Amino acid sequence: MRHQPDLPTARDKLLFTPGPLTTSFSVKQAMLHDAGSWHSEFNAKVKWVRDKLLEIAGLSREAGWETILLQGSGTFGVEAVFATCVPPNGKVAVLANGAYGERIVLMLQHLTIDHVVLRTPENTPADPEALDRALAADKTLTHVAIVHCETTTGILNPVVEVGHVVKRHGRAYVVDAMSSFGGMVIDFAGAGIDFLISSASKCIEGVPGFCFVICRRAVLLGCDGYARSLSLDLLDQLKGFEKNGQFRYTPPTHAILAFEQALNELEREGGVTGRGARYRQNHEALVAGMKRLGFRPYLDPAVQSYIITAFCYPESEKFTFGALYQGLSDKGFIIYPGKISQADTFRIGSIGRIFLSDIAALLSAIGSILKEMGIKTI
Amino acid sequence: MRHQPDLPTARDKLLFTPGPLTTSFSVKQAMLHDAGSWHSEFNAKVKWVRDKLLEIAGLSREAGWETILLQGSGTFGVEAVFATCVPPNGKVAVLANGAYGERIVLMLQHLTIDHVVLRTPENTPADPEALDRALAADKTLTHVAIVHCETTTGILNPVVEVGHVVKRHGRAYVVDAMSSFGGMVIDFAGAGIDFLISSASKCIEGVPGFCFVICRRAVLLGCDGYARSLSLDLLDQLKGFEKNGQFRYTPPTHAILAFEQALNELEREGGVTGRGARYRQNHEALVAGMKRLGFRPYLDPAVQSYIITAFCYPESEKFTFGALYQGLSDKGFIIYPGKISQADTFRIGSIGRIFLSDIAALLSAIGSILKEMGIKTI
Repeated sequence: MRHQPDLPTARDKLLFTPGPLTTSFSVKQAMLHDAGSWHSEFNAKVKWVRDKLLEIAGLSREAGWETILLQGSGTFGVEAVFATCVPPNGKVAVLANGAYGERIVLMLQHLTIDHVVLRTPENTPADPEALDRALAADKTLTHVAIVHCETTTGILNPVVEVGHVVKRHGRAYVVDAMSSFGGMVIDFAGAGIDFLISSASKCIEGVPGFCFVICRRAVLLGCDGYARSLSLDLLDQLKGFEKNGQFRYTPPTHAILAFEQALNELEREGGVTGRGARYRQNHEALVAGMKRLGFRPYLDPAVQSYIITAFCYPESEKFTFGALYQGLSDKGFIIYPGKISQADTFRIGSIGRIFLSDIAALLSAIGSILKEMGIKTI
Repeated sequence: MRHQPDLPTARDKLLFTPGPLTTSFSVKQAMLHDAGSWHSEFNAKVKWVRDKLLEIAGLSREAGWETILLQGSGTFGVEAVFATCVPPNGKVAVLANGAYGERIVLMLQHLTIDHVVLRTPENTPADPEALDRALAADKTLTHVAIVHCETTTGILNPVVEVGHVVKRHGRAYVVDAMSSFGGMVIDFAGAGIDFLISSASKCIEGVPGFCFVICRRAVLLGCDGYARSLSLDLLDQLKGFEKNGQFRYTPPTHAILAFEQALNELEREGGVTGRGARYRQNHEALVAGMKRLGFRPYLDPAVQSYIITAFCYPESEKFTFGALYQGLSDKGFIIYPGKISQADTFRIGSIGRIFLSDIAALLSAIGSILKEMGIKTI
């Protein structure tokens, strides 16, 4: 797809982050309307959005799948799954190799849900065999949770292989696909996913304001009475949609209107496959260009997603991340600081309304700043 | 203030509801930008918004007050207060006379927080004397919760008188001021309020996507370790703002930009007093006009807010609310169904970017529809 420059937003800094992202001007324009949150016209849009999310996931209601929209950031959706769906005597195995896996652990602590954590280093994917042993050893484990693309580093976890282990042991499977859903094809059935969480402001390229959970209807319906929070009660939220088409509590109407437009634009780009191809191109051009500038990606390419890439600080003493960040900001580019403990890194996202020409402009700006710092590029 | 017609939104139906409301075009235009949620420019706006909310509340940090913004609808904010601030052995007295008081009860049930409910009928304000007796009789009650303007009916509860009782007994005081804050002056200190919750999409006339809690800093800081939810942990949210100026989790960036604009427009209208005057005019014109059309307000004027007004169905058998609602929708006006159990009512809001000319147009449309129904107006 050719880059259609969105001129009216050209003044905004481009966001090379894991979200909120740079969105199209037409997505933002969709917010120039006030909708009645209880009105049938708005309810019809909510229904369309819920249906469309299933469609782009390659799923259907007939096959037993459901989508629930929930107010708040993606974290609210992840916590909602545990708060709603883990029984009082349930226990969760969390596969963690970054900040988002650790965030799940924090949630479970707050919700006083029993859990174990199976950690791998931040540069190492989750280990299906370790999970296999853990599930065999502890029959009280009811749920397994994993982050698909850990944006701490950009590492991809093997959700299908892990899912096979989860299903062989007959446990429920929760996948945090915040930064990957809509930009990567996910095999729900093959992976045996029961609950998958993502958010409006990631690869669908909507604006932030709500998240969504795609789940097996029968599994969710089996969770009646478990909810530890009213606001985060996913089952009650589903019942609300089914009773009268409405959100139980005030929805972010403008963000929903933007999302409707974003879903249409996703379709025009060729759906998840088409969008994923653009993101992959962005990522490959970024990595090639950064290597030319002397930066080394933190991860082995074999486990690296095309969503976001962590780069190690160069070894030059003249380099400071603060100066790079500020220099890029002054030139109209926002990148992301690192979030990992094991190495000094910073991160650059490849997702959002960003094209090869934007990657080229970013690389050129980084080159200039390195030169100003007196750092030689290769 | 003269009505400045917002032409580009003239095609949107006018929302005579308790929110999301009709907002100005300039508020919506503020959303035509993508902001980096971790960037200093956005953080500065978040800080400005938090400061401005204290200012319009007539409060200051020096006097010990704080504002915390939280993703999600207002309900998320109300639940966050209880989830964060009631100690494990705490107990809440809920004063309830409508759906929003009952929603607090539901929250406490989900959070497994002990509570008692002091109910008054839906047309009767909360009773400070009954609370006085309850607090005297039960020393284990730690918190008192009340809804300021119960939008179920539009009734105003006596938050100051109730607050005097709460403070005399030395308990903590939680006020849900969702639909009143920004449109009515609230005496925080006089009422002894510890926590007040409202939302972006009510009288400040922003768009939905987040809520906010104004509280006494020392009281919130005393709640360390109580949080029953990570997403709804208000104290951790405050610590996040204070650590690096950021939301802990993805903020609704566009809704924040809209809110910044909305706060500026509130100031230009003369602050809470100026806005309240317009809402009061709207309400008075609405009630006078509706009476001329033969409708009777549900509440005694002495307890009626100027935020939203419940009207009883007329006695004519020719009247159906469905036909009125649809007829008004066809003409570009959205009103609100009733929510109370004790009488057949519907509701019309006076808040949002709505002026006397809009009230006149609404009344004229209602008159036409009654005529089409064959109902004589007075």
